[in-house]
Order: sequence, then structure tokens, then C-alpha cells
Amino acid sequence: MQEAVNQANVLVQALPYMQRYSGKCFVVKYGGAAMIDERLKAQVMQDIVLLRTVGIKPVLVHGGGKEVSEVMQRMGLQPRFTGGLRVTDAETMEIVEMVLAGTTNKGIVSLIHRAGGKAVGLSGKDGNLLVAKKLTPDGQDIGYVGEVVQVNPEVITVLSESGYIPVISSVAIGEDGQSYNVNADHAAGAIAAALKAEKLIVLTDVPGVLANLNDPASLISEMSIAEAEELLRNGKAESGMAPKLQACITALRGGVQRAHIIDGRQPHAILMEVFTDRGVGTMVKP
Amino acid sequence: MQEAVNQANVLVQALPYMQRYSGKCFVVKYGGAAMIDERLKAQVMQDIVLLRTVGIKPVLVHGGGKEVSEVMQRMGLQPRFTGGLRVTDAETMEIVEMVLAGTTNKGIVSLIHRAGGKAVGLSGKDGNLLVAKKLTPDGQDIGYVGEVVQVNPEVITVLSESGYIPVISSVAIGEDGQSYNVNADHAAGAIAAALKAEKLIVLTDVPGVLANLNDPASLISEMSIAEAEELLRNGKAESGMAPKLQACITALRGGVQRAHIIDGRQPHAILMEVFTDRGVGTMVKP
Amino acid sequence: MQEAVNQANVLVQALPYMQRYSGKCFVVKYGGAAMIDERLKAQVMQDIVLLRTVGIKPVLVHGGGKEVSEVMQRMGLQPRFTGGLRVTDAETMEIVEMVLAGTTNKGIVSLIHRAGGKAVGLSGKDGNLLVAKKLTPDGQDIGYVGEVVQVNPEVITVLSESGYIPVISSVAIGEDGQSYNVNADHAAGAIAAALKAEKLIVLTDVPGVLANLNDPASLISEMSIAEAEELLRNGKAESGMAPKLQACITALRGGVQRAHIIDGRQPHAILMEVFTDRGVGTMVKP
Amino acid sequence: MQEAVNQANVLVQALPYMQRYSGKCFVVKYGGAAMIDERLKAQVMQDIVLLRTVGIKPVLVHGGGKEVSEVMQRMGLQPRFTGGLRVTDAETMEIVEMVLAGTTNKGIVSLIHRAGGKAVGLSGKDGNLLVAKKLTPDGQDIGYVGEVVQVNPEVITVLSESGYIPVISSVAIGEDGQSYNVNADHAAGAIAAALKAEKLIVLTDVPGVLANLNDPASLISEMSIAEAEELLRNGKAESGMAPKLQACITALRGGVQRAHIIDGRQPHAILMEVFTDRGVGTMVKP
Amino acid sequence: MQEAVNQANVLVQALPYMQRYSGKCFVVKYGGAAMIDERLKAQVMQDIVLLRTVGIKPVLVHGGGKEVSEVMQRMGLQPRFTGGLRVTDAETMEIVEMVLAGTTNKGIVSLIHRAGGKAVGLSGKDGNLLVAKKLTPDGQDIGYVGEVVQVNPEVITVLSESGYIPVISSVAIGEDGQSYNVNADHAAGAIAAALKAEKLIVLTDVPGVLANLNDPASLISEMSIAEAEELLRNGKAESGMAPKLQACITALRGGVQRAHIIDGRQPHAILMEVFTDRGVGTMVKP
Amino acid sequence: MQEAVNQANVLVQALPYMQRYSGKCFVVKYGGAAMIDERLKAQVMQDIVLLRTVGIKPVLVHGGGKEVSEVMQRMGLQPRFTGGLRVTDAETMEIVEMVLAGTTNKGIVSLIHRAGGKAVGLSGKDGNLLVAKKLTPDGQDIGYVGEVVQVNPEVITVLSESGYIPVISSVAIGEDGQSYNVNADHAAGAIAAALKAEKLIVLTDVPGVLANLNDPASLISEMSIAEAEELLRNGKAESGMAPKLQACITALRGGVQRAHIIDGRQPHAILMEVFTDRGVGTMVKP
Repeated sequence: MQEAVNQANVLVQALPYMQRYSGKCFVVKYGGAAMIDERLKAQVMQDIVLLRTVGIKPVLVHGGGKEVSEVMQRMGLQPRFTGGLRVTDAETMEIVEMVLAGTTNKGIVSLIHRAGGKAVGLSGKDGNLLVAKKLTPDGQDIGYVGEVVQVNPEVITVLSESGYIPVISSVAIGEDGQSYNVNADHAAGAIAAALKAEKLIVLTDVPGVLANLNDPASLISEMSIAEAEELLRNGKAESGMAPKLQACITALRGGVQRAHIIDGRQPHAILMEVFTDRGVGTMVKP
Repeated sequence: MQEAVNQANVLVQALPYMQRYSGKCFVVKYGGAAMIDERLKAQVMQDIVLLRTVGIKPVLVHGGGKEVSEVMQRMGLQPRFTGGLRVTDAETMEIVEMVLAGTTNKGIVSLIHRAGGKAVGLSGKDGNLLVAKKLTPDGQDIGYVGEVVQVNPEVITVLSESGYIPVISSVAIGEDGQSYNVNADHAAGAIAAALKAEKLIVLTDVPGVLANLNDPASLISEMSIAEAEELLRNGKAESGMAPKLQACITALRGGVQRAHIIDGRQPHAILMEVFTDRGVGTMVKP
Repeated sequence: MQEAVNQANVLVQALPYMQRYSGKCFVVKYGGAAMIDERLKAQVMQDIVLLRTVGIKPVLVHGGGKEVSEVMQRMGLQPRFTGGLRVTDAETMEIVEMVLAGTTNKGIVSLIHRAGGKAVGLSGKDGNLLVAKKLTPDGQDIGYVGEVVQVNPEVITVLSESGYIPVISSVAIGEDGQSYNVNADHAAGAIAAALKAEKLIVLTDVPGVLANLNDPASLISEMSIAEAEELLRNGKAESGMAPKLQACITALRGGVQRAHIIDGRQPHAILMEVFTDRGVGTMVKP
Repeated sequence: MQEAVNQANVLVQALPYMQRYSGKCFVVKYGGAAMIDERLKAQVMQDIVLLRTVGIKPVLVHGGGKEVSEVMQRMGLQPRFTGGLRVTDAETMEIVEMVLAGTTNKGIVSLIHRAGGKAVGLSGKDGNLLVAKKLTPDGQDIGYVGEVVQVNPEVITVLSESGYIPVISSVAIGEDGQSYNVNADHAAGAIAAALKAEKLIVLTDVPGVLANLNDPASLISEMSIAEAEELLRNGKAESGMAPKLQACITALRGGVQRAHIIDGRQPHAILMEVFTDRGVGTMVKP
Repeated sequence: MQEAVNQANVLVQALPYMQRYSGKCFVVKYGGAAMIDERLKAQVMQDIVLLRTVGIKPVLVHGGGKEVSEVMQRMGLQPRFTGGLRVTDAETMEIVEMVLAGTTNKGIVSLIHRAGGKAVGLSGKDGNLLVAKKLTPDGQDIGYVGEVVQVNPEVITVLSESGYIPVISSVAIGEDGQSYNVNADHAAGAIAAALKAEKLIVLTDVPGVLANLNDPASLISEMSIAEAEELLRNGKAESGMAPKLQACITALRGGVQRAHIIDGRQPHAILMEVFTDRGVGTMVKP
Repeated sequence: MQEAVNQANVLVQALPYMQRYSGKCFVVKYGGAAMIDERLKAQVMQDIVLLRTVGIKPVLVHGGGKEVSEVMQRMGLQPRFTGGLRVTDAETMEIVEMVLAGTTNKGIVSLIHRAGGKAVGLSGKDGNLLVAKKLTPDGQDIGYVGEVVQVNPEVITVLSESGYIPVISSVAIGEDGQSYNVNADHAAGAIAAALKAEKLIVLTDVPGVLANLNDPASLISEMSIAEAEELLRNGKAESGMAPKLQACITALRGGVQRAHIIDGRQPHAILMEVFTDRGVGTMVKP
């Protein structure tokens, strides 16, 4: 009986958050351990379906570099990177699209259905959602690597208002109809901005932004856009963290209220962030 | 941190119930200790607002015999009862209406607003909601005591679909425009039936229907309509329980899916009933 | 036959007024003799229902000081006034709410139904309609007497657009959840302003604003806001007339087109004002 | 002042009729003196606009035999009739259409606008409203005289729901695209039936159906369909009255509630019929 | 088979135009040979119905001077013109209205139905569509000849959005309720402007605007508003062309995108203009 | 000029088909040469976009066996078939999904955008669109090969009504969340039935159903369901034709009006079938 009492208390504590966020849009960048561990995967999907059930409109954005490299290797190709970006020739681009828009995306859709929700998987080509132009870092040609220059969010809105959870893979389309491989963190930031989302939530495999990379206790629980930009400029952000911080900045500059970088290895990290007064990870605010 | 994890788990456990009941109407008969104790009052209102927040449409129905008797005494009048029914002369009827539709009803509305919800208080006169005819038990004239013969639920629907929680006091109107004092349990059952509600939840000051009135451990956790009718027919139901059982029967006969008699002295009893797999009190089903 | 011809002519004369006001909102401050005499009561309700039937959206606002004092006396309490305001301790406030939101309000609702209309009774607590803060005239504490500082008219709009006539009693709610006794004339003026009503019509027991209080023939049939303010400033308005003039000023300053102070003792005074070219009482215009 | 009181009383007496008929459709067959006398014309239009203003949806149907004959004579043609039907060769048909759909129809539309309403004139060709087949009474070919075999009321509904008063001339279209001259009384009956109108009101130049054609005092104020059919069968109906009775029967058989044949020479006869308890003319009921 | 291939190619070539114009409004001034020759008439109606079928909203405007003169002569009246304008006494005005709003208008409506579309015929009196004031060229009184001073396009919009093709005759109404004969080209230009149409298409009996009136090869295929105004100012426009150029200028000044003067003697000239890259006639642009 | 006239004539000939099919749903099974040849691909997309532009709601269904085998071989796997079905172990299933839902599906979406349309790619997992159960032909286990047992077309309808062309790959989901490889012809037939489509159009690489497989001139241009079933039963249908005939039967049994098997090697075969009176290929009707 005491257990039931505790359960009721938890629900009551979540009430103010439900009231505050009902009807709002949350963009979740899904990745890392939470996309590999079977149990964590199922838990993230429960979190997402719960958001939807209490009236929040979640949108999932994902990449999948690991899966891409695996398939490449099975096909006898050697993944190559330069400056953290995958060198993407035509054959590699085809594999990126197959894996992200085919296997990974539809797998997430299927998990959401198993958790009791309704989802539709999209790539940046659907409804011309993500338009990219070619990236040439330091003038180098690294193939079909692009950056998002336009977001057409109409298809997200149509699906979201009909009760579906849109799941978006980070493949974009060039003006010439060419497919481009874009960074999923960046795509999530741009989509959040285009939707004027309430929150951007980025899942990582660390506790959040750390002041000292070797000390998990040095978590910075809150920072301003200015501090985030300072961190990027100084090159003090860890390499994996840089695109995540950039996504937060893009989102906030575009009108998003709050951006969060949280630890996806933590079970139900999204619910903890959203529905308890114990924030987790790092919050960036305007 | 462990606490946050537990909180998340509780929310996840509540998810299937939220999904099942979203968009459905619940009629709650409010009364007893839960209507007197300040803390319990606030908790019931939190429960009601939480139902609304996760997409359920709650409707509150209340009486208030105690408050009526108090005001009568302050005005030098002696409350009289016969067969459990208040003898209601014209002056008493005026006090019943003042207290129920004035003080009690508006007090509940105000508490719901404090819990973050939006409410509108109604009596059976508003929108001709509850139409009654005079009751003459065993041919006796006991004044303006009536039974509900028609429910016009349109005003409930209008308010409910605009996001308000309707709060209804058990005062009805005769075809001649006369006010009638009606039993609040009966009114709740009739309203639930007219709305084809998903659930009727009746708050009491006992653990539920007991097989042995003196043994709280003899709780009957589930019964059929037929068993409830049998109990009433045999006169085995405790006097206070009889109208509650009758309300459940009326509701279920009218198309309601489940009726519950639960212990309102238990904090957050409504949430426990609705969102945990540990049912509380007695459930009556068709 | 001649009678039928005359009837038709009257309808035709009313036609331009019906066309002009169709779809517009009228706030009627109900009070005085028209709220006491049984025949006048029924006639006011016919007038209100007729407005609704030809497409106007009437909203009724009422107080009920007389009824409050009567109940206080029946409960052995002595009504006290200072500067025209009722000294309102906690017990008095409870009685004010019981009488206004209970007896009086629901009685009006019931009369409108008898006249063939549909009504819903509200107090300032319903949907947080009237928010008040404590009044301390000349620094004096006279208890729970408040002035309206905010109107949330959404609940009026919802009901009005569903065909109901909202009937509002002058009980407001403080930010702390406390009930406040507010002047019904002031409440009517504030509500008319919040609704951007077409007209505010105030019923009184005199022919209108008189230039010479002792001479009913000295009726001022039309005045500007400036003239009304002048009258108030000079203290030349009769004490009962002052809040009514103030209500007219509040309404017109808030965007209402015309405010009328008319003689509620006159049968069907509202219809005469609205549908004939013979205006009655005093019209205040911007 | 007494006058204003009387005016208010008339409005109140009309209230129950307004309530009963709000939102309902009335088809009015316009013709006779009411279509010739300038003053009567203006009064009929006031009546029609008043119906619309109180929420009734009036539809006007008219013929115009007199005007057709006049124009024919100005063009040197001799109108010919056989069995009450105009022999309609191609040239005559062209004149019928010019006069009815051109002059007469647009003249009525213009008068309604002058009375403050909004109208759109239609012939049976617009939206394929009235489909006819050729009539050959006793096997005789009398040219383009037709009877209505189908009504497509969609265009009436579209205009009526956008606030317009449809005005319909009695020109129909054959399946071959040929224009047909149809009896306006019959057309009105068929339209009323297709719209499931509340009332069909036929204006004539006599007090109603008379038991004795020479005695205006022998007015039959009410009859059943069966009695109307009997009258037609026995040939006892006056020749001008026969198509009007037939229209009433068609309408009632098609689901119309009441049909009225009233004296259009009487000023505001429509208002008298609709809004007073003194019915005028003859009412036919199912 | 080759034929079917060609057919498919034509449809594909039309596709970009269908995409560009879907949902847009086109005003077509109908007149000249295309309104006389039976085959051309049927073809214009096919063109109009095809526009409607691919999602364009066509509106037809027509005059009919020739038909008016014919009927006048049959009635023994002599048509008179001064400066290209018909001297229009009361009797002539009646004939203009009979012919345009009666015969011609309803004839066009009927043809559209035969081509598989749905149409409603209107004159400028319906819904107060075209309001005119009297024209007195050089101070001369030439009777009921007017110029359009106001367009109330609501009735067009209502019908157009319900799937009907509005067909409008050039009869207008004065503020005094008097009918006025207005130039149909001018009316079309004013209507196009009021609707902010995409295109105004004016049918004529010449290939378009010619630089040299005697040389059909001197067609000016495109001109600016300024050039059109220059042409009018210099009096270089042929007398029949002047009102057409004026209509184009009025339309473009009022926000229309393109105005076209095309050869209505050419079968399916409208389709050729709209759906092929081979423009026909003269295009005037802002 | 003559060319423009011909173009107009073609459009006019297409008009009756546009009118007949406007607002209707067409399911197109895309495959064969039309999915390989670059020029044919672009032409099919023009056809599909044209259908959409004239108000038809096209839905594309595709497989892609060839592409799957290619990728398998690049990954060192040997495609195996038994009885025309691909033996589909877990690794093969992953490749099927990657190729169909990733590369092929998104490629089609991109082509539709280039043709000026808006498309969204779906697999049978999105919105639980295609639910399958395992197929075991003759009791044999051939892995994750399934047959469609349920279609949930809601997501198609949502997208279609918002102007998108849904493009669906033939991957289905089992009740256990497992992916299944389903025959694309069968999927198209089941989807057409679930949508109660107007037409199912199946593209092949032969002229249609041939009476004599070696004689292209033996095309059967029309057959009944019964004849189609007879053909299947007798095993006379060519192996590639069997699932296409089955799809037609499924569609027609489910309420589709007409099913067509047409030659996708023919440029614009879809337009020829839909918009000309020269049907192509074989039509199956109920």
C-alpha cells in the first residue's frame, strides 16, 4: 500500500511539469549508448511515448555512425574520417542512406509502436525536410558531406498534429537532388529552431558538459549561450561535445526556450529531466 | 539520484493507464472526509487536475449535508431526517441551495484553480442539468426532496470540451421551476450514465464494500452488477453504502464501463485507483 | 384584425435595431425593483431571452444586498455599512457568497429557463472570472470588500457561443484564493469592458440621471463620458447613482459603444431601450 | 410612452414564435397584388428580411405571367392560353425567361437589398436547380411548358447558409438543355419539399380557401391534406386556387410541416401569420 | 498508339502551368464571336470547365450589346449610340436587363452545365455585387449608363468556394436602387481587381493589340501598364480596344498579376494561353 | 499555331477523365523497367505528379528485388530463391529493409520532388501500415517472408489529405515486431483494397496479360475477376504475372473499381491509361 502512496506522490510531483509543457514541442537528439543497449532503447521509447501521452509533441532525430561503419566493413570498405567528418564518396553515401533511413530509422519506429505509440520515420528527403549544401572544411573535398541550409518542417507538423511521433534520420538533400550526409546533432538543432520547439534534449554518453574532462564531478549544470559559445571558441569543448553545444546554440538562437545535454546511459534520463525538479546534465539557456 | 530513477519508473508504470483513458470521461462523487480535511481536499483537487492534464475529462459531483445542518443550526433551525432523508421544508430548501450551490460548490471551484486547473461550478438548474420529481417515500410528504428523472448533459460537454472541470452540486429543478434536494450519490450515477462515462468513482469513509461491516479486512474488491443488486435487495448493505451501490448500478446500467467505491480518507486514492495496478476499494463491473 | 396589423408594424419598426445589434454582446446590470417584483422579474427575463433569440448575446450581472441583509438577520447578525460599503467579516462574506452565488444566482437561471432560454450561473470564482484585491477606503479595514483588478472573460465567451446566457454574481476571488464582496455595478462595467460589449445597460429604480434629484422631469437623456466624470467629481451624483455612472465610464473607456442607465420599474424597459426609437433613461456615450 | 410599452408587448408576444422557428427554412410563393402594388411589395420584403434577421431562412419563389404578357404585347405577340396554361412557342419561351429571370427576379433582389437584406436571384438553370420535362395536357403540344421532375437544392443551401435570401424564378431546364416554363406554385411546392422546409406560405389575392367562392366569410381556416385532395378531385377549387392547393399537397407529402394560403393584399400578412396567434388565411396540415 | 503518346506529352507540358495556377482565380471577359458562334461557345465552356477541374477558379463576365439591339428592334425601338455608349432611357434599360440578366446570362449557365460544370448566373444586383453611379460623358445625359464605383465580391467567393462558376452580366445597381448599364470590359477589370485575381483574360475578335490596325502581323505580344496607358492617352487604341485596355489597366493596378487580350475566334484560345508556352494575343503586365 | 490547337484539343479530350476521377485515390504498383531506366523513371514521376495536380490522390507502392540482390552480392552473399520467393534469413532481411526503405524509397521521393510534387516515403512499419505473418509455402521455412494480414491506412490518408504523395516500400511488420519481406504486388493490392481506391494500376515489362505468352499481339484487353481467377487456377498465368493478377483480384474483391496491368516500358503509360479513351494493357473489372 505504501508503494501505491509513493506512486501517487510521484505523479503529483510531475503535475506542474505536465501542465507547463502540454501542447509544446520537444526535439530529442537520440544517439550514443541509448541507441545501442536494448534495455536503454526500450526505456527511451517509453519516455518518448509518455511525453506524447501527456500532451507534449516529441520529435526524434538520429544519426548512426557506428552502424554505417559496420555495414561498410561488411561490404569490404574502410571508413575514413578527417577532422571528425566521415569522408563520404558516392558508395559510402549510398550506405549511409541505406543504414540511417532504412535499418536504423525503421527500427526506432518499430520500437515506438511496441511502446504503445504511433510513429512515422522520415529522412531529410521526405517533404524536402532538410536541404543541405556541400561542406568543404578548409577547402577540402570530402565528398557528400553537407550542412543544413534550410528546414521545411511542414511534414513534421502534419504528422505531429495527427498524433504521430516523427523520427528523422540525418540524411539531407541538395538543391541538385543529391543526397548529403549531415551531422545529426546539427540537424536536431536546426529542426528545433525551425519548429520553435520548447526544448532541445541531446542524449550523450557523458554526464553533461564537464569543466574538467577527467572529472565527472565537474559537471556544469547550467550555462548561458554566451558561455557555450566561449567554450566552443576556446576549443575547450571535447570533440564529441562540440557539435552538441553547437546544436544547442543554433536551437536557442532560433527561439527554443531551453537546451539540455543529458546522460543517455542513465535509465529514463529524459523523464528525469522533464518531470522532476532534479535537473540532470547541462542546461543551456538564452 | 536513485529517487529520480524511482520517479521515472512510477511514471512509466502509469503510462499504460494514461494511454487507455486519454479522452475518456470520469465522474467522481466527492464527499466524506475528503471534503472536510484540508489536506485531503487539496490532494483530491491535485488528483482531479492531474486526470485532466493527462487528457482525461473529470466531472465532480458533490453534496454537503453536514454543512447544510451547520448553517441550519446557526439560523436556529433543527435538521430532521426520516429514513435517511432530510425533511426539507421551503426554508430548509433555501438553505440547502445556498450552502451547496453557493459556499460548497464555489469553494471546490476555487481549490481546483489553486491546484492549477480551470473549473466551473454548476447546480442542477444550470442548463436544466438535473430535472427532478418529488419523492414521497412510503407515501409520506417530506417536502422538497426529489429524485432525478432527466439529465441534460449538454452544458457539461460544452465546458469539458473547452478545458474546464465541471463541479456539480446536487440541487435539481422540478418541471414547475421548484428547487429539489436530491441525493448526491444518485445524481452522480445518473450523470455518469447520461455521459456514458468510462468510470464512476465514489469516495467514501470506509475501505469499500465490506462482507462483514465490523471487519475492514473483509473488503470485497470486485463484484458484478448482479451481486450489487443482491446486496441491496437483501438489505445487507450498510445504510450509507446503499445509495453508493445504487449509483454504481445506475451508472453501469447506463453504459459506464466500471464503477469504484474507494476510501477517500486515503491520500491520493483516486490516482492509486486509476494509475496503478493495485486497485483500491471495491470495483463493480457489468 | 387591426391588432394583428399593429403587431406586424411594431415588428417592422424593430427590424433595423435587430439588424444593427445581431451578433453583438450586451451586458445587463440587473438589480433594484426589477429583481424583487415577481412580475417585473419575469418581464426582464422575457426581454433577455428575446435579445438572445434575435441573435444578440446578453450577459447578466447581479448583486443582491437586500437578500444578504435578510439572511444575516435571520442568523442573528447585524449588517453594518460604512461609506455605502458593507463591512464584511469572514462570517458575513460566507453569507454573501451563499446568498448571491447560491440563492439569487440560481433563481435567475431558473427564471430564464422558464422564459424559454438557456442559462448558466457563474460567480467570479468560476473560470477565475473576476479577480479582486482588498479595498481599504481611507485606509480603513472593512474586511473582505474588494475591487475588480482583472477579468478573465473566456468562460463567458465559451458559454455564450454555445447558446447559453451567462448570469454572474458579484463575488470575486483574491490572488490568495480568498472570496471578496465586490460592487455589482463596478463588476458589470469591468465585464462589459473586457468583452468589448456593444452596450452596457444598468437597471435602476429611478428614471435615469436627474439634473435635479427632486424633479423626475429633469432627466438628462444623453451625456458624454466627460459630463459623467464631471458629475462624479463634483459629488453631484446621488449616492446610489455614483457606482452606476462609474460602471458606465469604465465600460466606455474599455471600448463599449453605449452605456444606458434605465428605469427597471418600467415593464420591458430593456426592449423599449433597444428596439424602439424612443430611448428611455440616460445614455452615456464616448 | 404607452406606445413604447405596447411595442414591447408585441415583441414579447412574438417571442415564442421566434424561438420555435429559428434556424428553420420557410418557402414563400410570391405573387398577385403583393407583386404589383409598390407599397405591398416593400412590405413583403420587410417581412422576408425580418424572418431572416430572427434566424429563419426564407426562400422566395415567383412567377410573373402578367409582366410576360405585357412584354409580348409590346413585341406585337398575342398571348394564348389553353386550360389555364400559356401556349409557349420558342419566341414566347425566350420572353418568359427574359422577363422572369431578368426583370422580375432582379427587381425583387434589389428590393430586398433596399429593405436591408442580402439576396441572390436564381432561375431553375442555376446549379441545375429545377429540372423539367415537357407537359402535354390531354396529349396536346403547347410548346415549352414543363413540369418539375427534379429539384437540386444545393445552390439554395450554399447561399442560405452564407446569409443570402435566394429568390427563384419559375424557369426550369430540360435534360436536353431546353428552357421550360413551369407553374410557379408547383415549383414552390417542389422546392419546399426538396428542402424539407418548415413552412410553405403561398400569397394570393383572396382571403384563403373559401367554402363558397362568393362569400369571403366562408373562409376555411384549417384543412387536412385529405380535405385538400378531395377539393381538387371534386373540381370544387377555384381555377386559380387549384395549383396553390396542389403546391401545398406536394410540400406536405414531401415532409413540410405546415402549408399556408394567405391574403397577400393584406399588409404584412406574412408576419401576421408567423408571429401572432391570430393565424390568417387557410392552413393545410399533414 | 503514337497518338496516345502525343496526348500524354501534351498533358505533361501543361503540368507546370497547372501547378502554378492551382487555387488561383481567373476572370474571363466573354464576348465577341466566341459568344455568337455555336461551336466557339461550346469550346469556351469546355475551356472554363477544364480550368475549374484542374483547380483554377474561373469567373465569367459578359455583356451582350448585339442581343440587346436585336430585342429593341423586335419591340420597334431604334438603338442609339453616342461616343460608343448606348443611349439608355428607362425602356431601353429594362430591355438591357431582360436580355443580359435573363436570356444571355442563363444561356451561358446552361452551356456550362452541358459541358459538365456547375454554374450560377448573377447580375450586379445580386449580393450588391456591382455598384454604379451615373455617367455623363462631356456633361451629356445619356440615361442609365453608369460606371462601376464599388465591387462587393463576397457572393462570388461564396459560390466559387462551393464549386460553382459564377457568370456575371454587366448590369449594376445605383445607390438609389436604379439599374445601370455598365461596360462589360470595365466591369470585368473591376471584378478582377476586387478579387485580386491571378489573371484577367479578355476575349476579342482580333489577334490582340496591333501596332498597325491594318496589319494582323503587327501584334504586340507583350506590353507594360505604362505602354498601355500611353496607347490610350494617344488615342491610338482602336475604339473597340480602348475599354479592353482600360480593363487590363484597372485589373493590374488593383493587384492582378497578368492581363491578356486574346483572339476569341481561335478555338480553345483560353487553354492555349494558359497551358502552353506559346502565349497568344497581347499580355499586359505590371 | 496548329501545335497549340492540337495541345488544346488533347486537354479537352482529357477533361471527362479529370472530372470523373477528381478526388479519387489511385494505387500505383511501381516496378520493372520503369524503375530502372532513368528516362522512364522521370516520366512516371511526371505522370504521378500530374495525377495529383488534377485532384487525384496517387499512392505509390514499390519493391526492388534487383537492387537487393546487387547489394547482397556486394556484401558477399548469394541470393537464393525457392518457388519465386527469396529465402530471407536475418542478414538478408536487414539488407532488404536497408535497400527498399532506405535507398529505393527515398530515391523515389526525391524524384517526385524534382518533378514538382511533394512526397513522403513510408515502409510498412510506419504507422503500423502493413502487418504481416510468416509465410511457409508447403510447410517450408524460408525465413522472414510474410504475407500481409492487416493494413492500417490512416497514415496514408493523413499525408494524402495534406497534399503529399505517399511512397510505400514492401517491408511489413509482424505482431512480434519482426520485419518481414512481402511481395510488393500483393502489398499494393491489399493497400488499394484498404483505401477503397478507384483504381489499382500495376506496371510491368510486358504489354499486359497475353493469351499466348509468345505472341504480344494476343493481349487480353479486358477480363472479369472470374476470368482472372480462372487463369490463376489453371496455372496459365506467367510466373511474373501471377502475383500481379492476384493483386488485381484482392483489390477488386475489396471494393476497388478497376484494376489495370500496363506496360511500364511505354513512356507515360499511366497518363495514356487514365486520360485517353485508348486503354492500354489489360483491365480487370468486378
